[in-house]
Amino acid sequence: MADQKKLVAEITSMDEDFTQWYTDVVIKAGLIAYSQIKGFMVIKPEGYAIWENIQKHLDARFKAVGVENVYLPMLIPESLLNKEKELVNGFAPEVAWVTSGGSEPLTERYCVRPTSETLFSDFYQQDVHSWRDLPKVYNQWCSVVRWEKETRPFLRSREFLWQEGHTVHATREEAQERTQQMLNVYADFLAEDLAIPVVKGRKTDKEKFAGAEATYTVEALMHDGRALQSGTSHDFGDKFARAYGIQFTGKDNTLEYVYQTSWGMTTRVIGALIMVHGDNSGLVLPPRIAPTQVTIVPIQQRKEGVLEKAYELKDILSNFRVKVDDTDKSPGFKFAEQEMHGIPLRVEIGPRDIENGVCIIARRDTGEKQECAVTELAQTVGALLEQIQKDMLERAKKHLEAHTYTASSSEEFERTFAEKTGFVKAMWCGDKACEEQIKEKYGVTSRCIPFEQETVGSTCVCCGKPAQKMVYWGKAY
Amino acid sequence: MADQKKLVAEITSMDEDFTQWYTDVVIKAGLIAYSQIKGFMVIKPEGYAIWENIQKHLDARFKAVGVENVYLPMLIPESLLNKEKELVNGFAPEVAWVTSGGSEPLTERYCVRPTSETLFSDFYQQDVHSWRDLPKVYNQWCSVVRWEKETRPFLRSREFLWQEGHTVHATREEAQERTQQMLNVYADFLAEDLAIPVVKGRKTDKEKFAGAEATYTVEALMHDGRALQSGTSHDFGDKFARAYGIQFTGKDNTLEYVYQTSWGMTTRVIGALIMVHGDNSGLVLPPRIAPTQVTIVPIQQRKEGVLEKAYELKDILSNFRVKVDDTDKSPGFKFAEQEMHGIPLRVEIGPRDIENGVCIIARRDTGEKQECAVTELAQTVGALLEQIQKDMLERAKKHLEAHTYTASSSEEFERTFAEKTGFVKAMWCGDKACEEQIKEKYGVTSRCIPFEQETVGSTCVCCGKPAQKMVYWGKAY
Repeated sequence: MADQKKLVAEITSMDEDFTQWYTDVVIKAGLIAYSQIKGFMVIKPEGYAIWENIQKHLDARFKAVGVENVYLPMLIPESLLNKEKELVNGFAPEVAWVTSGGSEPLTERYCVRPTSETLFSDFYQQDVHSWRDLPKVYNQWCSVVRWEKETRPFLRSREFLWQEGHTVHATREEAQERTQQMLNVYADFLAEDLAIPVVKGRKTDKEKFAGAEATYTVEALMHDGRALQSGTSHDFGDKFARAYGIQFTGKDNTLEYVYQTSWGMTTRVIGALIMVHGDNSGLVLPPRIAPTQVTIVPIQQRKEGVLEKAYELKDILSNFRVKVDDTDKSPGFKFAEQEMHGIPLRVEIGPRDIENGVCIIARRDTGEKQECAVTELAQTVGALLEQIQKDMLERAKKHLEAHTYTASSSEEFERTFAEKTGFVKAMWCGDKACEEQIKEKYGVTSRCIPFEQETVGSTCVCCGKPAQKMVYWGKAY
Repeated sequence: MADQKKLVAEITSMDEDFTQWYTDVVIKAGLIAYSQIKGFMVIKPEGYAIWENIQKHLDARFKAVGVENVYLPMLIPESLLNKEKELVNGFAPEVAWVTSGGSEPLTERYCVRPTSETLFSDFYQQDVHSWRDLPKVYNQWCSVVRWEKETRPFLRSREFLWQEGHTVHATREEAQERTQQMLNVYADFLAEDLAIPVVKGRKTDKEKFAGAEATYTVEALMHDGRALQSGTSHDFGDKFARAYGIQFTGKDNTLEYVYQTSWGMTTRVIGALIMVHGDNSGLVLPPRIAPTQVTIVPIQQRKEGVLEKAYELKDILSNFRVKVDDTDKSPGFKFAEQEMHGIPLRVEIGPRDIENGVCIIARRDTGEKQECAVTELAQTVGALLEQIQKDMLERAKKHLEAHTYTASSSEEFERTFAEKTGFVKAMWCGDKACEEQIKEKYGVTSRCIPFEQETVGSTCVCCGKPAQKMVYWGKAY
């Protein structure tokens, strides 16, 4: 087991230094490599395969609710971006500008899209004419660039991959419904596919997206008690429609403005996967999203019949995503690698097992091992993968509950954040000034005004005035 | 049928003006919209769904031959691009430069990737250490930017979507084999999924990719007799490895350079799909790639039971990609739309058909109609879709053969290009000067030196000197 220790020893313990643990996992599990430009990462096969599975599952959920995929240009003319002042103020400080093309300077600067509200608005302005053209429920999978100062792989990078949905509707109500519907798609996807439970709610005006009337969010809690905004859905009302002149002829023949929404989820959720489920041996991936679900490790593989049996087990498990590790590394090294990569199940098969018609199955999430008759392998693996998916969600739920606190006074609020890291539920007066003061004092932000409101006090934990809403507060990534 | 005529009348006839016909189809079939920046297009749902199916089929073929997907940065530092002089000379005049990020000017310009050989080389230089790390067979699906002067949707755009594969190998032979293998993947994909037959061959030195030792190509022939390069595969030998210092420790413990390949296919093939199969009523899509395979058109849909029956037929056809056109448009208009969008089959169902337990099936490719018992519908549709896929390939093959000519003398060569448009097979001495002269004189280029060589003469059709190779010549897009 010397090999195994050596490999595992290379990861910093998460209790010792969570930030370093995260970086170690991202690199050692082979998810990314750094490029020459700060904040631009290479997503390696192991990382990209996770993204492909995320795309597959999320895209299927989109299509089930009538979303159609499109592709819009990567560049935005400065004049187009300028049309929506609020949005520009939001993104202007962090865009990359293209100033020459084909050895000639451009007459107008183009920015690399940081998000595509302006482009979709410009497109819809030309494409929508009549109420018959509505709604349009479009989405694109692409990369975007935001010139962040501080960068961390997946969590905050200058270039990242995402999907951005942009829809136009005939009525305000329909746009509002779509905003909520897509938030629910995100919440279901996170819970059911990524085993990540979330708090659903509305962002305060201070935290909402530039240009939106309302921003809704799904907030997840990482292992270290910090929050990660994992997906957002924006209701724009007719704001963009008015700025970009997106009008349609209604059934009664009058000219009306459309109502718009947008919603996005990014490669950031890979960061959430790591920080919600990972442990000191590396990644722990939920079976639904794991690129490889089962690794078969032959023991004493040079002995006659062992490798053949390993391939036979692979055939038996052909309904799953299975690999045989037939490299010349030691079994201990292979175990450590399977753990580092977060592969949900490991099947061990050696000469003695073959004699007895059995193999050993080890769970990545709990470390539990069990003997299994080869004749029952496929059925057992299927049941175990389902069980792991469920257990991972349950454990994450328990962690979320255990790290969600309540504070009914400013003293309790202060003490809780001094002693704990997690979500703190506390009342708020609705005043932006209090949010700013809380941020300055405790370094925490309002994560959301949850849909499920509770009364955990009667006065604002900042100013003591009568409270309007219960808010989830926390330190965020 | 007035509606139908009206809609169809909006497309220019392909015999009258092929270029305008192409533009009309691209727009009227709803594949793209123009954006504010020349050469940057919006790919609309109808167009993007074709690309998604292309991705699905091609990616499955890649994975079957061991390709792994990754994602590399969108931007390339100028200093990195400069390392490979030949490549720079190839792309420098047509890149877009980012000069500021986050309101600050950059200390070094970054170009938006026109292709990613440099980035992959930089990555492999860090990632490859030992013979155990080889081969690496990576691919990415992304968008690239090339600042073309003349642009046309799909065929030549400043931004386009593609896949680019980049591999590193321990030996020259293995890289050569991979180059050929991927060319065959393209040829098979084009023939079997897109029903587009191709000529496979090697590019002359004049036409090869900047920096490559050899470029292989699959060349397709459009309906108007012009050629379209539909996919290329490059063998770089150890050229990039030497420029970027990509070395590995071999089994014998010596330091060696890797051998590299790259291969790409782009949204251009959508242009090929249109120009190989389309007709004066619009698109004609091969069933395997068609986003919708069957449109069901209810006749007299307001009569009781008609719409219900149409939905029932949809359920019967649930193994296929089926839509019911239940809009309030006239049947004639719906027929014309189904034809414009190239949907392979149309099923018509009206009150009299319901009485008789039948429906009408119309083929998009031939216009043939047949009556079909509802009880046999699923089976008949399945068989027809397979038949259409085969017939489309056969027709395209016949067109390719009928428009491939042979010229054994310079007189015959000149006469053929004066009278015909298509491929001309003719002998060549191997001299670049002759290629240049032929291009200047007749406006045609060498498309490839086909793998299947024939002797169609003994002397070069340009200079009359002894011939080295038989070459396919043609006017290209």
